Amino acid sequence: MEGNKQIILKDYVKGFLKESDLILKSSIVELNVSSDCNGAILVKNLYLSCDPYMRARMVKMEGSYIDAFTPGEVIEGFGVAKIVDSSNPNFKKGDLIWGMTGWEEYSLIKSTEAIFKIPSIDVPLSYYTGILGMAGITAYVGFYEICSPKKGETVFISAASGAVGQLVGQFAKLFGCYVVGSAGSQDKVDLLKNKLGFDDAFNYKEESDLYAAMKRYFPDGIDIYFENVGGKMLDAVLPNMRSGGRIAACGMISQYDVEDRDATHNLIYVIIKKIRMQGFLVFDYFHLYPNYLAMVVPLIKQGKLAYLEDIVHGIEAAPAALVGLFSGRNLGKQLVAVARD
Amino acid sequence: MEGNKQIILKDYVKGFLKESDLILKSSIVELNVSSDCNGAILVKNLYLSCDPYMRARMVKMEGSYIDAFTPGEVIEGFGVAKIVDSSNPNFKKGDLIWGMTGWEEYSLIKSTEAIFKIPSIDVPLSYYTGILGMAGITAYVGFYEICSPKKGETVFISAASGAVGQLVGQFAKLFGCYVVGSAGSQDKVDLLKNKLGFDDAFNYKEESDLYAAMKRYFPDGIDIYFENVGGKMLDAVLPNMRSGGRIAACGMISQYDVEDRDATHNLIYVIIKKIRMQGFLVFDYFHLYPNYLAMVVPLIKQGKLAYLEDIVHGIEAAPAALVGLFSGRNLGKQLVAVARD
Repeated sequence: MEGNKQIILKDYVKGFLKESDLILKSSIVELNVSSDCNGAILVKNLYLSCDPYMRARMVKMEGSYIDAFTPGEVIEGFGVAKIVDSSNPNFKKGDLIWGMTGWEEYSLIKSTEAIFKIPSIDVPLSYYTGILGMAGITAYVGFYEICSPKKGETVFISAASGAVGQLVGQFAKLFGCYVVGSAGSQDKVDLLKNKLGFDDAFNYKEESDLYAAMKRYFPDGIDIYFENVGGKMLDAVLPNMRSGGRIAACGMISQYDVEDRDATHNLIYVIIKKIRMQGFLVFDYFHLYPNYLAMVVPLIKQGKLAYLEDIVHGIEAAPAALVGLFSGRNLGKQLVAVARD
Repeated sequence: MEGNKQIILKDYVKGFLKESDLILKSSIVELNVSSDCNGAILVKNLYLSCDPYMRARMVKMEGSYIDAFTPGEVIEGFGVAKIVDSSNPNFKKGDLIWGMTGWEEYSLIKSTEAIFKIPSIDVPLSYYTGILGMAGITAYVGFYEICSPKKGETVFISAASGAVGQLVGQFAKLFGCYVVGSAGSQDKVDLLKNKLGFDDAFNYKEESDLYAAMKRYFPDGIDIYFENVGGKMLDAVLPNMRSGGRIAACGMISQYDVEDRDATHNLIYVIIKKIRMQGFLVFDYFHLYPNYLAMVVPLIKQGKLAYLEDIVHGIEAAPAALVGLFSGRNLGKQLVAVARD
């Protein structure tokens, strides 16, 4: 038996997510898989990933792609963990895995369908919450599959210093595109320009006229918009798209949180500019994970990709870290280090 | 020399199009191609097509796919005409053609790139303003190329009794889809159900809750939305789309006319439902015209396609016919019969 601190959803969330919507609870857990849980694994969580889509699981949204969290119960997310006990022949005690786990110190994972074994740890283990995990596959699929990029095209990325945006920008640069990113602070803008190799970047909070900003950075228009935010930014981008442009709609972080969602006024440009706007969810693309690893691991080892993490320590810090995503408090991929090993 | 009545754009148009935005002018035209117009043809216009996209040419819209009309000059549109004189070796006096022409009795067409010869008239000549012209190719490309339909899928069509909508609906039925259309009057709804073979249809003006209407007609969701209107309808459709659904954005008739465009609030569903929304313009697909003719002419001759036209007579009636499109006055494809031959 062991103590098990857990993060519980108090109730379905309205409006902006607040720390008080999440409750820290101390429980007790038995450190083995009981005999009636055949195929299950018991894991010790090492790193938890904070992701904007989690906000969408805090409401009942009809027909959503993923179940809502249950009020009163522990929330879930992607994480890196070590197996403490296993009744599944594919996993053994001591194995490192990443995948969907609980926001708690120890989790019993009954379905291992979306659990990936971590083969080696010659890159930081925490990378499996981001660049080698869901954010990485999202950036890979979003850019190469959904955006249909061509060399020399212009690419705009919103929330560009976030987990997905920083990778899309670097993939686009390596591919031979001209890349501009937006972010919400001067620090982030500096990182985009000086560390992540973007051609240019700007602080959207300092632009009174986003349309004019787009015109300034893309006088000849935008071929590809990697959409991470929604709301006003999309409206400013649409008239600035080039004919035949593509919009990959991966996240709309500004839209998860509001009851009255921002309106988009410029959809007429989807026709005028012959735009393809494509929503996608990474859950459909996990079969491409081996291809992605084969591409990205060498790039990491050759130092051709930078990757920024923002790590808080201890499960107690998890709620604030998650809430911080929505005000842009994080600098790079936000994660929680729960335990060392 | 001959009298030539013309429809002139008074000035760029703000707000709803009114008849007074267009002026009827009596001019004089010489019925031959002057020697300095090599390659030009002079035509007598027989039928003129009234199309919603023409409204978009009455404003200066930056980066638009097509030039704005020039205030003080004759407006243009698709039409059927007979060649009166030609300095172009590909066309001779007496040939029938369709393509972009002037809203006037006689037009000098200097560029014949988008002018198609009409090979035979074993179908009504007026059909070349619609089912055998631009509206037909639009419906063909939009449904087969853009919507990626699968047999058994559910299809919703707005402005379904219009030139494009009535064809998309029939193509979808022939393909094996379940098809529901919306229109703006009981007469149109009756036509959709009784004459055009739609599985169901409703009058959107009698629905106080469009979202609920969608739920009623598509309890299991919509696979394909053929978007002809924009505005509130799109917002009602988005949450009712099925996962992986497709939206072909062909026109947004409700949006051409307004200064303050309707806002779309539900774009978040593009992500949640993994929707592909694709704007397209038929001008890019004229190379598929022979394929389309090969498909559609037999269907017409076998009586497998119904096609409704709303014809007004005389160029003097043209402005009111065009304006009527935006209030839904027409029943079927709106055109103007200018001359018999």
